[in-house]
Amino acid sequence: MNHSALSELGRRTALPAISWLMHSALTRPRLISLAAGFTDNRTLPVATSRKLLNQILRSPKTGRPALQYGITAGEANLRRLTARHLRKLDSESSPFPSSSLVLEQKSRTTTSRKDENDKLHSPSRLMITGGSQQLLYMTLEALCDEGDIVLVEDPTYFVFLGILQSRGIRARGVQLERDGLDLTHLEIVLLRLKKSSELRRVKAIYLVTYFQNPAGVTTSFAKKAGALKILKQFERAAGHPIYLIEDAAYRELRFAGGDTPSALTVRGAVGRVIYTGTYSKPFATGARVGFGILPAPLFATVQNIKGNHDFGTANLLQQLLAHALETGEYDRHVAKIQKHYARKARVMKRAMTEHFPPGLEIWESGGGLYFWARLPKNVSTGIQSKVFRAALKNDVLYVPGGICYADDPSRRKPNHEMRISFGSASEENIREGIQRLGKVLKKLAKSPDLPV
Amino acid sequence: MNHSALSELGRRTALPAISWLMHSALTRPRLISLAAGFTDNRTLPVATSRKLLNQILRSPKTGRPALQYGITAGEANLRRLTARHLRKLDSESSPFPSSSLVLEQKSRTTTSRKDENDKLHSPSRLMITGGSQQLLYMTLEALCDEGDIVLVEDPTYFVFLGILQSRGIRARGVQLERDGLDLTHLEIVLLRLKKSSELRRVKAIYLVTYFQNPAGVTTSFAKKAGALKILKQFERAAGHPIYLIEDAAYRELRFAGGDTPSALTVRGAVGRVIYTGTYSKPFATGARVGFGILPAPLFATVQNIKGNHDFGTANLLQQLLAHALETGEYDRHVAKIQKHYARKARVMKRAMTEHFPPGLEIWESGGGLYFWARLPKNVSTGIQSKVFRAALKNDVLYVPGGICYADDPSRRKPNHEMRISFGSASEENIREGIQRLGKVLKKLAKSPDLPV
Repeated sequence: MNHSALSELGRRTALPAISWLMHSALTRPRLISLAAGFTDNRTLPVATSRKLLNQILRSPKTGRPALQYGITAGEANLRRLTARHLRKLDSESSPFPSSSLVLEQKSRTTTSRKDENDKLHSPSRLMITGGSQQLLYMTLEALCDEGDIVLVEDPTYFVFLGILQSRGIRARGVQLERDGLDLTHLEIVLLRLKKSSELRRVKAIYLVTYFQNPAGVTTSFAKKAGALKILKQFERAAGHPIYLIEDAAYRELRFAGGDTPSALTVRGAVGRVIYTGTYSKPFATGARVGFGILPAPLFATVQNIKGNHDFGTANLLQQLLAHALETGEYDRHVAKIQKHYARKARVMKRAMTEHFPPGLEIWESGGGLYFWARLPKNVSTGIQSKVFRAALKNDVLYVPGGICYADDPSRRKPNHEMRISFGSASEENIREGIQRLGKVLKKLAKSPDLPV
Repeated sequence: MNHSALSELGRRTALPAISWLMHSALTRPRLISLAAGFTDNRTLPVATSRKLLNQILRSPKTGRPALQYGITAGEANLRRLTARHLRKLDSESSPFPSSSLVLEQKSRTTTSRKDENDKLHSPSRLMITGGSQQLLYMTLEALCDEGDIVLVEDPTYFVFLGILQSRGIRARGVQLERDGLDLTHLEIVLLRLKKSSELRRVKAIYLVTYFQNPAGVTTSFAKKAGALKILKQFERAAGHPIYLIEDAAYRELRFAGGDTPSALTVRGAVGRVIYTGTYSKPFATGARVGFGILPAPLFATVQNIKGNHDFGTANLLQQLLAHALETGEYDRHVAKIQKHYARKARVMKRAMTEHFPPGLEIWESGGGLYFWARLPKNVSTGIQSKVFRAALKNDVLYVPGGICYADDPSRRKPNHEMRISFGSASEENIREGIQRLGKVLKKLAKSPDLPV
């Protein structure tokens, strides 16, 4: 007798690698975690949230709708405000005159440019979800059968890899450069899949386009456009659209350089881009309010799936975010935390310069929560490695790079990198943690048997 | 070219039937909806929630954890309080001495009875979810592959049927009596499935055990025990456990009669019962906080699935409920709304007595939000029927019974019933709505061409 009666999905769904790391953290009280992707407790808008919730709940008239069911796609006001917010981000970040942000022009229409731009960020295709995580999950449900393929960045967000694994979806890695995807490699990967007659299984490419988790890379607008163009060329052979899932979770945690327009603004791309964003990171992680813009046919399907999941995200939290946006509290908060993370990133960078041995390649980012450190290729950073065990013994934790790589049979999984986060640790602990890690790396660098 | 690239799940996931009904409601301003399963706006705890949220957010010390990520299974305090709450419900409702509530006694152990009882409602197997809906969804993900079978009550909660449909899971209906499942029919259904070698596809039975949606039936404790016993007898042939999913969403919306112990308290059943409950209905629908108790191996799997869905339900809402439970506000609120719905049910019953024609069978309930009206078998109540169209024309809406029946090839789908809700309408609208509906029914009863 099979003792569990589990489905294939149930049997495939593994404990996330990160859980093991978090568990390690709990059992060592002195441990400094540079692993967690949490935002900083000190940046959470406690007083602001209190004020806004008081406004919402001050009368039955405004309070009752916040405590009642809403509609599955999300509260109309928050959808409108979010669409406007994204439109603002995209128009302010555009290096192009607004005319290049329109869809492919239909000839003989009198539709104004403004109308066309509005369609890119239409509230009618915008959904509010339980963090952007839920939207990623449902999008994969809507698109992928077991055995289908999603292209991912090498490396990528490991929880996304966990979803693929759980759902029996295959991942294929595309190399990452400092300004985003290696487009030549993208073409090679697609050609290879075409050759092996697997192109019809390719449903999407998943890109974390801003201050990427884990490598900190921001994809340039040219590369977004380039990727969409390449995907388009393979659609006929695939027999269906190949979508670009743009995960913009870290977009507003920016503290250096300008913003980049989203892939939604690439000419003619609106039917191919699934844009996911979140208020968790820039406002309050515990509020778990995310959002996404989807092409119309996909939107309807994902909305029906969300009806089955939960009928809609909690209205009270949606109203909290809507009020934050409406009152300007959101913008003020974002400006504040951008400075906060800029300072913490500087502290970490300075500590790394001081304490890390030479020979490491550090990828620095103008936002997000992470540095990406690349050790010599023969030095493993995995959970069983000397580096990781020595770090844990010295009470400092990082995310081993290996867990951020898909199981792709076409290449060996790199295992010599680490994601180092300045998100949740205090400045003091950042300094102390980097010092501990530096000590470990220096000691092992001297050791004759370093390669493990 | 396939224009959508949708997965099989994506293609199967239909717009829920209820959406059409809700849409109808929006386009007729005079319409009185006796269809919605909403709780009454007037019962929502606006002032209480404001007070509690103020307490939580009054200082960074308590406020920050509420706005930060938590753990996937839910906030420890809320899990503990929920387990205690369920333990209290089950022990107060038990007609048996506490000794019959224990698990199968292990011989030669010194484990006390209290310890055994605690295990039935262990916080370690209790998960907090986005409404109980999310838990139902994830449980089906964990248990069922496409083509698997779940037994359901005839009729049952139509959103659950929508999930089954979306996931390609087959439903088989078991007849419902006034005190729960027809156990003889359950055996017949299982024997039939055994005969057709489909028993290995049967993973669970789904029962809405308190003031059932839609028929208002409460399953007796004896029938819970009886169902579990019958399921057990078929497990060897199935080759795996067959679980009982007990959906107790309406349990605390009780206004007449005593409570019934949950299936968790059936001797030896703790490894087979998945109990799902919610704070949405008894406290605030917009808070979307549900919970469930699962057998240990299933718990781990569902927890990992939830990690992929959303990492955990919003902490702020969890803390709101924890505070409500801790301060006694929750209990006070439940006592208040029980009286409120008792009154509304009485208003509806009186109106039905006054306005409905004879020949209808009305199933009355001691709780929940619904009456279940059974018309003569030859009278259709479906969306295309004369009754439904006449009702809509007279600006009153009900849920056609037909959408609450699974697609089960072994029987014709009954189509002569209606779910009538006193949940969201005001007392005045309940009276007016029933009068309108009565007018329609009386007029059609006189019509010679009634059967449609």
